[in-house]
Amino acid sequence: MTGTAAPFAADDYRARMERAARSAAEAGLAGLLVAPGPDLVWLTGYAPTAVTERLTLLVLAPGQDPVLVVPTLEAPDAAKATGAGALTLRDWTDGKDPYAATAALLDAGGRFGISDNAWAMHLLGLQKALPGTSYASLTDALPMLRAVKDAAELELLAAAGAAADATFEEIRKVPFGGRRESEVAADLAGLLRRFGHAQVDFTIVASGPNGANPHHEVGDRVIERGDMVVLDFGGLKDGYGSDTSRTVHVGEPTDEERRVHDLVRAAQEAGFRAVRPGVPCQEVDRAARAVIADAGYGEYFIHRTGHGIGVTTHEPPYMIEGEEQPLVPGMCFSVEPGVYLPGRFGVRIEDIVTVTEDGGRRLNDTTREMVIVD
Amino acid sequence: MTGTAAPFAADDYRARMERAARSAAEAGLAGLLVAPGPDLVWLTGYAPTAVTERLTLLVLAPGQDPVLVVPTLEAPDAAKATGAGALTLRDWTDGKDPYAATAALLDAGGRFGISDNAWAMHLLGLQKALPGTSYASLTDALPMLRAVKDAAELELLAAAGAAADATFEEIRKVPFGGRRESEVAADLAGLLRRFGHAQVDFTIVASGPNGANPHHEVGDRVIERGDMVVLDFGGLKDGYGSDTSRTVHVGEPTDEERRVHDLVRAAQEAGFRAVRPGVPCQEVDRAARAVIADAGYGEYFIHRTGHGIGVTTHEPPYMIEGEEQPLVPGMCFSVEPGVYLPGRFGVRIEDIVTVTEDGGRRLNDTTREMVIVD
Repeated sequence: MTGTAAPFAADDYRARMERAARSAAEAGLAGLLVAPGPDLVWLTGYAPTAVTERLTLLVLAPGQDPVLVVPTLEAPDAAKATGAGALTLRDWTDGKDPYAATAALLDAGGRFGISDNAWAMHLLGLQKALPGTSYASLTDALPMLRAVKDAAELELLAAAGAAADATFEEIRKVPFGGRRESEVAADLAGLLRRFGHAQVDFTIVASGPNGANPHHEVGDRVIERGDMVVLDFGGLKDGYGSDTSRTVHVGEPTDEERRVHDLVRAAQEAGFRAVRPGVPCQEVDRAARAVIADAGYGEYFIHRTGHGIGVTTHEPPYMIEGEEQPLVPGMCFSVEPGVYLPGRFGVRIEDIVTVTEDGGRRLNDTTREMVIVD
Repeated sequence: MTGTAAPFAADDYRARMERAARSAAEAGLAGLLVAPGPDLVWLTGYAPTAVTERLTLLVLAPGQDPVLVVPTLEAPDAAKATGAGALTLRDWTDGKDPYAATAALLDAGGRFGISDNAWAMHLLGLQKALPGTSYASLTDALPMLRAVKDAAELELLAAAGAAADATFEEIRKVPFGGRRESEVAADLAGLLRRFGHAQVDFTIVASGPNGANPHHEVGDRVIERGDMVVLDFGGLKDGYGSDTSRTVHVGEPTDEERRVHDLVRAAQEAGFRAVRPGVPCQEVDRAARAVIADAGYGEYFIHRTGHGIGVTTHEPPYMIEGEEQPLVPGMCFSVEPGVYLPGRFGVRIEDIVTVTEDGGRRLNDTTREMVIVD
C-alpha cells in the first residue's frame, strides 16, 4: 500500500473522520474500528510500513476525539502521517495487552463497525476483552463510507484512468504474436509505472484459451497469431486506482470472434447507459447481462458487472444482482462485462465510470472497437 | 506474497495438512480455517493473485479430507497450486453466500483455529452463519504450527540468509556519506534481488538521529560523515525469508558510539548463547536484555529481542518476556537487540538463528564488529 501521496491536508482527514463518526451514529453504531489498509489511508493518510500481528487501530466514536492505537515502535511514523494532527496517538509497548488498552476506549455494550480486512486475530482479541460488544464489517455496516468521491478524489481517479489509457495506446503498438504473456505483462507494468503509477496491482494478459479464465493473470504461454488476448491492468497512481480491460486480436479475427466482441461491447455500453443517480447498482448489472443473455451467451458471463474503485482497485459499490444501493453522484466503479468460452477464448471490456447528475462519465476512453495487434 | 516457488511436492503439502489437522485435534479444536497468506502457502502452495472480499478458505478437520473453498473465478488458478492434488476444491459463484457453503463443512458447535490474518469480515460471516461455533487465532491456538522447520525449509532459510549476507558485503562498499537514505535503500533492494530475492519486504536505512526510531524505514535525509547508520533488510527468496541488521558508521566513531555498539554486540551474543532446546523463548530475551540493562541502557532497548521467520519475515515464536514456549530444534528466529538514544543514534545487530540439538546456529554470519563505511 503506497497510498500516502494524495494531496490532502489534516483538515480533509479531520472532515472524513467526523463524517465517518456521524455515519456510524446514524447507523446505530457505537463507533468504528479502522485497521491498516484502505480505510485507514482514506481516514488518516497513514499506512504502516508493514501490517503485522502488532495491533494498530483507529477508534472513531461519535462525540469523542479520534484515537489511533499504535505500537510504540511505530508511533514516530504514525505521528508523521498527514492526518495525525487530527487525532490522538495512544501507543502500547511490546508485552502489554493492546486489546485491554483499546477496550478502555469503547462502550462495553456497543456495536461497532470494523474494517473488512482487520485481522481476525485482532477482532478475537477485542471480542474477548469486551464480551458485551458486537461487530459488523464496514462493508455490511457502512458500505458507502468511501464510495462517494469528492472533487479532488475524482480528479485523482481521472488522472489514474488517463494513465491507464496512455498505457493501452502504447501496448497496442508492441508485438504480441510469438511473445510470452509474461513478456507483454512486463511491458504493461513498465508502462503503468512510466505513466505515473507507484503501484501496479495486476497486469492480466490472457491469450487464446487462457482468456476463458477471467482471473488468469499471466503465464508462459506464447501468444499465437489468431489469438484473442484479454488485457486487464491497473494499480495506484498518487494513491488512487486505475482498472481497465480491452480485448485485442493478433491478426484478423474470425466472424465468431468479431460477433462475441461486438456483443460484449454492446453489453458494456448498455451497462454504462444504465448509470444515473437513484438507479440501484443491480440495474447496471442487469442492463449489461440482459444484452449477453438475449444473445444466448448468458451462461458464459460468469462474474458480476463491476466493483467500486478509490484508494483501492476493488471496493463497494458492487454492480451485482441483489445490490439495491442507489447510485449517487461521485460514485466510481467498473463496468466490465465479459464472455468466456471454455477452452477457446474470452472477451472483456472494462471502463471506470463515475456517476454525474446527468448519467455516467467514463474515466477510460480508449476505443472499445476490437484492436488488431501484431 | 510470492511464496509458491518452494520446491515442495503435493505429498509434502498433504503431510503438512495432516499434521495440522492432528495438532488441531490434540488442541481440542474441531478444525482449522486457513486464509490466504502464509498459512495457506505453507499448507497448500497456493497464493491467490489478490486477497479480496471474496472468501477463499481452507477447511482442515480431523478425519475429513481438506477442502478449499474458493471463488469460481479463481478456481482454475487454485487447481494449479502444487498442493491442489491433496485437497478438494469447492467453488462458489458471485451472488451466492460463501459462509453458508463453508458452514456446511463445519461442526456447528465446534471451536476452530483461524488464520491470524483472516479478514474480520469473513470471521463475522462465519460467526453469523454458525452462532454455536467459537474461534481462536492460530497464533493463540497452535502458535507453533509452522515454527519447527524441516530440513528442506532450513536449507531455504539458510540460502536466504546467505543472500542477505552477500547483500551486506556489497552494501558496505558503497558510499554512504552525502547520499540520501533512500538511495542506499534502493541499493539494498537491488542487491537483495540480484542475490535471488523475489520479494523485498523492508530496507531500513536509519542514519544519525533516525536510527533512534527502530522502525524508521527510510527517508530523504542526507547521510553525513560521523553518522551511525542502522541497516535492516530482508525479504523472500524461493518462498523463505531473510532478515538481518548491521549498524555501520560513516568515518571514525566516537568512544560512546563504539561503547554502545560493543554493548549491543555483547547483548546479541548473549541472546544467541541462550539458545538451546528446552529453553523458554523468554530466556533469549532476558539474556540479551540483561546485558543492556546491566550497563544502564535498559530503558533504551524498547522492543522484544526476536521473532520467528519462515514463509514470512515475522511469525511465531517470539523471543519476548512472558513467552514460555520451549525452544525446539528446527525453530528459526531473529536475535536482534538494540539501543536507541532519542535524537542521537541507534544501534541494532540481528542474525537469524536456528535451534539445533547442541545450541544455536546462525544463518547470518557477516561480522558483528562495527564496520566503517565511506
